[in-house]
Amino acid sequence: VTGSTPPTIGVFDSGFGGLTVLRALIQRLPHARFAFLGDTARLPYGSKSRRTIARYAAESAQFLVREQGAEFLVIACNTASALALDAIQDAVTVPVLGVIEPGANAAHAASHTRDVLVIATDATVQSHAYAAACHALGLRALEKACPLLVPLVEEGWTRAATPTGGVTSEVIRIYLAELLAESEAAGLNPDTLVLGCTHYPLLRPLIEAAVPAEMRVIDSAESAAEAAIQLFNGRIANFETAESTGLVSGHDFSRAADLPETTWALAPEGSFSAVTQIRCFATDSTEKFERLGSRFLGRPTGKVELVDLGG
Amino acid sequence: VTGSTPPTIGVFDSGFGGLTVLRALIQRLPHARFAFLGDTARLPYGSKSRRTIARYAAESAQFLVREQGAEFLVIACNTASALALDAIQDAVTVPVLGVIEPGANAAHAASHTRDVLVIATDATVQSHAYAAACHALGLRALEKACPLLVPLVEEGWTRAATPTGGVTSEVIRIYLAELLAESEAAGLNPDTLVLGCTHYPLLRPLIEAAVPAEMRVIDSAESAAEAAIQLFNGRIANFETAESTGLVSGHDFSRAADLPETTWALAPEGSFSAVTQIRCFATDSTEKFERLGSRFLGRPTGKVELVDLGG
Repeated sequence: VTGSTPPTIGVFDSGFGGLTVLRALIQRLPHARFAFLGDTARLPYGSKSRRTIARYAAESAQFLVREQGAEFLVIACNTASALALDAIQDAVTVPVLGVIEPGANAAHAASHTRDVLVIATDATVQSHAYAAACHALGLRALEKACPLLVPLVEEGWTRAATPTGGVTSEVIRIYLAELLAESEAAGLNPDTLVLGCTHYPLLRPLIEAAVPAEMRVIDSAESAAEAAIQLFNGRIANFETAESTGLVSGHDFSRAADLPETTWALAPEGSFSAVTQIRCFATDSTEKFERLGSRFLGRPTGKVELVDLGG
Repeated sequence: VTGSTPPTIGVFDSGFGGLTVLRALIQRLPHARFAFLGDTARLPYGSKSRRTIARYAAESAQFLVREQGAEFLVIACNTASALALDAIQDAVTVPVLGVIEPGANAAHAASHTRDVLVIATDATVQSHAYAAACHALGLRALEKACPLLVPLVEEGWTRAATPTGGVTSEVIRIYLAELLAESEAAGLNPDTLVLGCTHYPLLRPLIEAAVPAEMRVIDSAESAAEAAIQLFNGRIANFETAESTGLVSGHDFSRAADLPETTWALAPEGSFSAVTQIRCFATDSTEKFERLGSRFLGRPTGKVELVDLGG
């Protein structure tokens, strides 16, 4: 391993929603190597105890570091970030970043009223991790669980101006109306909404259409990727010009042009270089991962490799 | 144990949706004892391999028979019925009944055109267990996965003439329109719709409002309970008059009258006798079970007991 070898960034989620975080990372680090693990055999983490989640997350982190040589870890899973970040940091010796603090930091930077709203899964809301991270920054935060949004994304009902997208827009409208009513009752004056679930970036256009005009929408996947660049920057700066060296394997994205244009709309220049290397792993059920994952990643996941982390 | 001791019927599900089957059983056997196990720590079964599902289901069945003394088992879980009924029958010595064959039998009895539609979860549809059971009876069956219906039920968006119930009705309308279009394209003339998921009985009024007027709706939870009565009848007939004997523990439903009338609307006379005994077990997360389970069971679940079946 020489200085010109790109570092491997490990990205972990209990499922494949964290591919939205990987996507945001690739846009910023097109020349890095990425290893993504979805612990699909043991999801959902949200219904399990803190101790069980900590064990699963630590095992997953160790796989990425020990087996895949990850030099940095991004925990692209709100539940694991909320309940197991310490356990993961204890289990490995590389820098580890979760999604919650970056989301809270971005809300802090965006909010003028210092009142923010957070939508997330039931498990994330029950952990109150976003509220705690916001409070630590002097923000007031009101959280709401929106359990229907993940299945709506996984069903693909995300396109505006279609009957199915209309259902999703109505669900978002109902949830936001409830949240805004609770917010008003609590005397808050929110100007920022945090998307506290890795599935929600796929709903961003529908959500932006549903919020009041002055409200800023913060995507915790984007925020986590930004924070990762800051955290990992010293090591990563060394190889960003070494595009042509040391690259012997990985997926070839030269066929990117064959995909629908909207898939690539978020990518800055150079993001889809053929040198980006991604390996995706799952602990069970690679079929669903491969079928749905490309929507989250914005490109094909390639062949997802099955790994066994034990019961 | 004497002849006047009511038999214990074990009811198993990966989650708590199977409480709709337990509810249907209680209505028919108000004097039996019931032990319900939801293997909530290891759900969803649908994303796991057949071998893993078979092991989990066999362990769960053995708990009900060995630890709880169940003399009959009802597998109130479509995935386990589809993929693990043989494994369960091999693991225990008591009679075992699944939900799929009873649903297919009821469709056979109801259909004049011999073409039926089945809606279910993705995992159940992928198993094609309903189609196979229907084909064995000379029916043609078209199955459709409706992944949004379980989360809509769990969110409680089931009441007609409310904004949230309106969302659910629209989701049902979209799914049924797709299914009827596929059915027409396949040259079928269906007159029967099978609800192939234990959550769907809570949507029955909305589904009946959405199907063509002449279509019969078959509830596999009701069908399974009917089939259980037939299968277990000899032993069960002995105690149906022994209401006052041998009953020393279990939940007291004498407060049934305190609950909303609609909760009890389905119950025939005598169903909510104070002698009905139910014990509910879960392998994790009893909070959600207790919070949502009463909607499925149509009465309070009582305290749900946590059991550890291992990894």
